[in-house]
Formats: sequence, C-alpha cells, structure tokens
Amino acid sequence: MPALWRRAVAEALGTGLLVAIVVGSGIAAQSLSPDDVGLQLLQNSLATTLGLAVLIAVLGPVSGAHFNPVVTLVDWFTGRRDGTGVRAADGGVYVAVQIAGAIGGALLANAMFGIPAGLATTVRATGPHLLAEVVATAGLVLVILGLLRSGRAAWIPASVGAYIGAAYWFTSSTSFANPAVTIGRVFSDTFAGIAPQSVLPFLAAQVVGGVLAVLLATALYPRTDA
Amino acid sequence: MPALWRRAVAEALGTGLLVAIVVGSGIAAQSLSPDDVGLQLLQNSLATTLGLAVLIAVLGPVSGAHFNPVVTLVDWFTGRRDGTGVRAADGGVYVAVQIAGAIGGALLANAMFGIPAGLATTVRATGPHLLAEVVATAGLVLVILGLLRSGRAAWIPASVGAYIGAAYWFTSSTSFANPAVTIGRVFSDTFAGIAPQSVLPFLAAQVVGGVLAVLLATALYPRTDA
Amino acid sequence: MPALWRRAVAEALGTGLLVAIVVGSGIAAQSLSPDDVGLQLLQNSLATTLGLAVLIAVLGPVSGAHFNPVVTLVDWFTGRRDGTGVRAADGGVYVAVQIAGAIGGALLANAMFGIPAGLATTVRATGPHLLAEVVATAGLVLVILGLLRSGRAAWIPASVGAYIGAAYWFTSSTSFANPAVTIGRVFSDTFAGIAPQSVLPFLAAQVVGGVLAVLLATALYPRTDA
Amino acid sequence: MPALWRRAVAEALGTGLLVAIVVGSGIAAQSLSPDDVGLQLLQNSLATTLGLAVLIAVLGPVSGAHFNPVVTLVDWFTGRRDGTGVRAADGGVYVAVQIAGAIGGALLANAMFGIPAGLATTVRATGPHLLAEVVATAGLVLVILGLLRSGRAAWIPASVGAYIGAAYWFTSSTSFANPAVTIGRVFSDTFAGIAPQSVLPFLAAQVVGGVLAVLLATALYPRTDA
Repeated sequence: MPALWRRAVAEALGTGLLVAIVVGSGIAAQSLSPDDVGLQLLQNSLATTLGLAVLIAVLGPVSGAHFNPVVTLVDWFTGRRDGTGVRAADGGVYVAVQIAGAIGGALLANAMFGIPAGLATTVRATGPHLLAEVVATAGLVLVILGLLRSGRAAWIPASVGAYIGAAYWFTSSTSFANPAVTIGRVFSDTFAGIAPQSVLPFLAAQVVGGVLAVLLATALYPRTDA
Repeated sequence: MPALWRRAVAEALGTGLLVAIVVGSGIAAQSLSPDDVGLQLLQNSLATTLGLAVLIAVLGPVSGAHFNPVVTLVDWFTGRRDGTGVRAADGGVYVAVQIAGAIGGALLANAMFGIPAGLATTVRATGPHLLAEVVATAGLVLVILGLLRSGRAAWIPASVGAYIGAAYWFTSSTSFANPAVTIGRVFSDTFAGIAPQSVLPFLAAQVVGGVLAVLLATALYPRTDA
Repeated sequence: MPALWRRAVAEALGTGLLVAIVVGSGIAAQSLSPDDVGLQLLQNSLATTLGLAVLIAVLGPVSGAHFNPVVTLVDWFTGRRDGTGVRAADGGVYVAVQIAGAIGGALLANAMFGIPAGLATTVRATGPHLLAEVVATAGLVLVILGLLRSGRAAWIPASVGAYIGAAYWFTSSTSFANPAVTIGRVFSDTFAGIAPQSVLPFLAAQVVGGVLAVLLATALYPRTDA
Repeated sequence: MPALWRRAVAEALGTGLLVAIVVGSGIAAQSLSPDDVGLQLLQNSLATTLGLAVLIAVLGPVSGAHFNPVVTLVDWFTGRRDGTGVRAADGGVYVAVQIAGAIGGALLANAMFGIPAGLATTVRATGPHLLAEVVATAGLVLVILGLLRSGRAAWIPASVGAYIGAAYWFTSSTSFANPAVTIGRVFSDTFAGIAPQSVLPFLAAQVVGGVLAVLLATALYPRTDA
C-alpha cells in the first residue's frame, strides 16, 4: 500500500478534480445553453459521468479512489474486522483532505471561468430531495460493495461513472451523494451550487443512504467467512 | 447459487430501481426541457442506458439480473432440460417480485419528485407500436441469448444497456420490452407512463417477441449438445 | 465455422437491424425534435453508436458481423492467400443478403412508425460529400483491420460503434460508409434517406475508401509472414 | 517496435484525423444547431470523445498513439534512463509529423465541408483560459502516466477519450491540451478554430501542464527502481 501522504494527495486531488468537473461543467453549460435547463443538466451529467470514471481509474491504485466520506466510512466499517478496510486514523485523514480538496476544486473551477468568489444560494433541502439523496447514496455504495464482493473491482470506475450519470436524472436532487462534494459545491454560486443551509440535511441523508447500502449488501452478498 | 430469498430481493430491487430510473428521469426531463420532446427522450434514454447496465452488472451475480418476466420465461424454457435455467417455481417467484418491485419503483420515483399518485393516461397500443414491441423484445432476448451462447456473459450488462438505449429510438414504442416494467409504468402519470388499457396488448407483443428470439437463437447459435 | 445458411441469416438480420436503427431513429428524431436538425443528428448518431456496437458483439461469432459489402470484399481480398478470409462464393452470398436485409430493415422501420412506402428524395452526392464517403469508409475499414492485425478483435464492436458515432459528425456526408446500408436507405423517404441518383457515386466513393484502407493497413500493420 | 517511418505515418495520420474530427464535427455542429452554442459543444465533444478513443486504440500498437508533442516530450523525459521512452531523434520526428498531420487534418475537414481556406479569428488566450490549459494538459498527461505506471495501458484509449470529453466542459478553454492540435486548429476559421496570436500562450500553458503532471505522477506512482 502506498504511504499515507501519497494516498492523501490522491484523495485531495481526485475529490478536487471531481468538484472542478461538476462545478466547471455546470458553469459552461449554464453559459452556453442559457435557454434550456435540461440541456444544461445533460451537459453537466455527461461530463461528470466521463470524468468521474477516469478519476477512479487513474487514482484507484493509489488510494482506492474514495473521494467521498461515506465511502471511506463504509470501507472502514465493513473491513474493520478482517483488515481489508482503511484504518480509522487513515480514514480521518481521508475525510479531511477530501473536504479540503473539494473546496479547492470549486475555487479552481471559479478561477478557470473567471467567476468571482461567493457562497452558493441555491436552496435544495426539500423533503423529496432528501429522500432522493438517501436513494442516490445507497445506490452508489451498493454499486461499489456489490462489485467488490463479487470480485469485479475492475468494473468499478466505469460503473460508478455510469451510475452517477443516471442518478443525476432519476433522483430529484441530481444526486450529490457525497458529503465532501456537497461541502465543496457551497463555494461556487453557479449551476451546481448548494446553499450552506441545505448542507447538513443533505449530509444526514447521505449517511442514512450509506447505512442502508451496508444492510442491503450484507443481505445480497454474504461473506462466506462471516 | 444464492438462496431464493436473496435472489428475490435482488430481482425486486433491480426491477424497482430500473423503473425508478425510467420514470424518474422521464419526470426530470419533462420538467427541465419542456420545449422539446426529443430532448426529453434523449435524457430519458441516456439515463436508462447507463443505469440499466450498472444494475445488471451489480445484481447479476446474485439473481442473474433478469428484471423482466420474458427473460425469466426464456431462461426457464431454454435451460429446462440441462438444468442451466431458473427452476419453474423459482421463476414464478421471480415474476411476482419483478412486478411488485416495478410498481414500487414507480411510486419511489413519484415520491422523489413530489408527484401525486395516479394512473398513467398515455394510450400507446397502436398497431405500429405493437409491432415495435415485438421487435424490441425479440432484439433484447436475442442479445442476451447470443452473448450467453457465445461465451461472453461478461458483455451482457453494457450490451443490454446499449441495446435499450438504441431501442428507445428505433422502435416507435420507445421499447418497453418488459412486462414488469410495463405494469410498473402504469403507476406514474408522467412522461414514461402507459395507460392501463394499453398494458395487455403490450404484454402480448412482448411475449411474441420472446418466442421469436428463441427461434432465432436456436437457428443462429445451435447448442452442440442439442 | 457455422454453416453458410446460418451466417447468411446473421448477415441479413444484422444489416437489416442496422438499417432499422439508422432509419427508425432518424424518423423518431425528426418527429420529436422538429426545430433543430443538429439535435436530430445527435439522437440519430447516438442510437446508431449504441445499436451497431451491440449488433457486432452479438452476431460476430456467427458470421463475422460484416453487415457491409466493402468489409466483405476487404475480408476476402486480404485473407484470400492464407485462408483466413471469407471464400469468394460465400462472399457473394454475404453481399446479396446484406442488400436484401438492408432493404427489409428500411421497410421495417417504416412499418414501426407508420410511414408510407416511398423512395427517398434527399440528394446527397456533392463533391465534398463524396470525399467524405472516401474518408469515412477508409477509416471504418482501417479500424477493423488495425484491431484485427494487432490481436484485439474483442475491441471491434465498441470501436466500430464509436467510430461511426464520430464519423456521423466529422464527415459532411454523415458517414454512410456501407453500400448495402446506402441502398437500404433509399427505401424510406425520411431523415436518413438518400435519393436513388446519389447511390452509385456513394458506392464508388466507398469502394475507393476501402482500397485506401487496405493500402494504409499494409503500411501500418505489416504481416510478419508476408 | 515498428520502423520509424511506419510510426511517423501513424502519428501523422492519427493527429490529422483527430484534428479532422475536432474541426469537422465543429463545422457540422455550428451548421446544424445554429441556435445553441452549448448544443454545438455537446456534439463536438461527444464526437471527439468517441473518435479519439478509437484512434488511440487502433494506432497505439504502431506508434504509441501520442498525437501530441507534450505526450511525446513526457514519454522521452520519463523513459530516457531506462530506455522505455521514445528516443530523442525519433521524438523530434514525431513532433514534426504531428504538426504537419494536424494542419492536414484541418484542411481535410475544410474540404469535406466545402469551407474556403483561411486562418481562424477566434481569440482565446485570456488568463482564465490559460489556467484552464494548464489544468487540462496536466490532467491528460496524468491519466496516461497513471494508467501506464499502474499496469493498465489497455485502459488508455477509452480513458483518454473520456477525459477529453469531460475536459471540453470543465475547463473554460474547451481543453485543447495539445500543441499540434492547437496549431492545426489555426487553419480553419470555424467553430473549433483558434487565432494565430493565441497559439503561443496556449503552447506555453500546455508545456507547464505537462511539467506539473510529471511532478504529480512522480509523487503518486513512484517507480520501485527509482
């Protein structure tokens, strides 16, 4: 396993570029297709589908390519007994650099598009949207656990990219599904932004989704040694 | 092979999420791109392409990822002699939970988007549409049988997703190709809905398509032991 | 190798479904997005990208999935000495059923969409379009030969689908690149149609493209035994 | 390794077709969807995603499929000690034919669409755009080095195509990320063109991005023998 500092660089870089992709493509979409919000979301979701898959493929061998505190939490929890998961202290580092990277990624997107700094003002935390975040995060974690437990880790990059590409559309929240990315998206008052007051409800829904996915994965993919 | 209850959970979950993807992305598309039905269908079809491929990849090792009574029927019929197919009693359970899951998926999509309950009102059963359902289902089953019989089961998730993505467009019916999904789509009066009176003709056409595919597969991929 | 009649069924079916995809998705696009020809072509090209890749994947093990007289001609020519190509007589059968299948596919698309019979009226044979057909066909054949000669036949389905998806856009002719498909597309006076008087120039350009590709492949991928 | 002249043909052909894809699909997009620049960029970026992946897959076994002077420079620099990289003299040939091929590709696109010759007039070199080119090129080179150093060279074609597809959107410059392609795009005064006075700043930013990627790759993927 690579040294912790290398893994932390990979997690910060990957989460940062993920947010830069989400926020940056949102800015481009909003600017270039001003007349159709659905077309903007199509551009935003396709860019994220492609970019996220590549980030996981490239950085997976370094850090596992979590880019997501819920994924890190699940990795620690499900692997804590047999030593396959991230260690608790390393997991804490992962989460810290994911959040820092996510904020940096939003600022990088702003800088590339000449957008002034500012916090997002899009309020998103409605009841249906929180239900959507539970579903979106549960699905994301189930994709990862299901492929891992059936011995097909090599399918994870493309599958997670494709899953998020679909989840942009079938969940009303456009599938944030990631506490670090949610926090990062506060720092750009553009298409992909989320107002600060919506963050905590989103984070809570995402954690609930992660718990639900662990329960489902335990039912569907029992470990032979468990 | 996993226990029947685990397989039943996988079939219900997979069919439910498939319908949630189809219906939910249809609701989002209709709401976000109100001025162009073709753009709506593009968003709807791309979300389904990506989401369906992932669902089959993730749940395939558990239940075979049928998510479709015609697929279950064909699996039972073509494998009944050599024991490779689903057993008749298990197949009955599969179909039942597929239908239940499909209805649940439509209700979940409604809930995520805050859409009130209600039955769909879009009448779809015209002559050309029924011909399209025969073609769409025959193609779907032929894709599955052809890849299975040529030893490339690992290609099924991406291929089925891609096939449905094309079939949305080249069949006039937008390719339901699935009795459980057809029934589920009754339970949302939105973009992807189908009026109750169109269901039975669609189901009949889908079964005809399945029979046609078995005949074609028998001609194209003869079993050496047959 | 499967019996000739099975391979002929596969070639007819595959070419027919390919034309049904091209023509049918064109009809749907034209009908659903009437205000933007570029959006129509995007829908048409994405459906073809996905559908063509699946057809080659599924039928490749049966007949080689040529679906294209230029590909059959190149296969015969490049493999005539070492017995790896299609035999001349079988190649004649391939071309005949490809053309018959292509016409059938156009009629099937018409029937699925309730379009009356009629020959296409879109004149396409301009100088730039003929140059585009040379380039489009040369590229298509080079993709196939290059992947075959570098031992990666398994990449052909996705690569050919992706290539055609790009060629729809970067060639001004939208990349017919296939004599059988060109003839089939005469039989639907819709988005993807081509007027009869444009067919012969297109066929000539496609054959020139095939010859060019064989020359390029000979330079780039020399056979060690040659 | 193939003879240098074969590799030079592959680099010229690949870079030329890449520019033909970028420029040609831009011309088609601009012509067919005149009312929405974002839709034009979607068509342009999807065609490039698909076409670039295929070009790398097909020509990779011949020349390594650099198609990009920064990639050639990085290949030489990172492999100069252990003999795995391109040799300096061969690298010079690569860069020369990449540039010649790129110009030829732009002229081919013009010819296929009947566009008169002329230099591009779109000024692109603003501060945010130059930052974007640094990020775009660094990401591109990191994708290549990361996959190579983790033993997954077979993933490079699809990953590079997908990366560029995302980078079109999340970088404000639409991600040229390639000095030869940048020079080629001067020779078509159309959607994808770049004015001559913007070329040198773009090239400088791209080289900076390449250097940054080498530093990052050294940190993330240390060579065990280094």
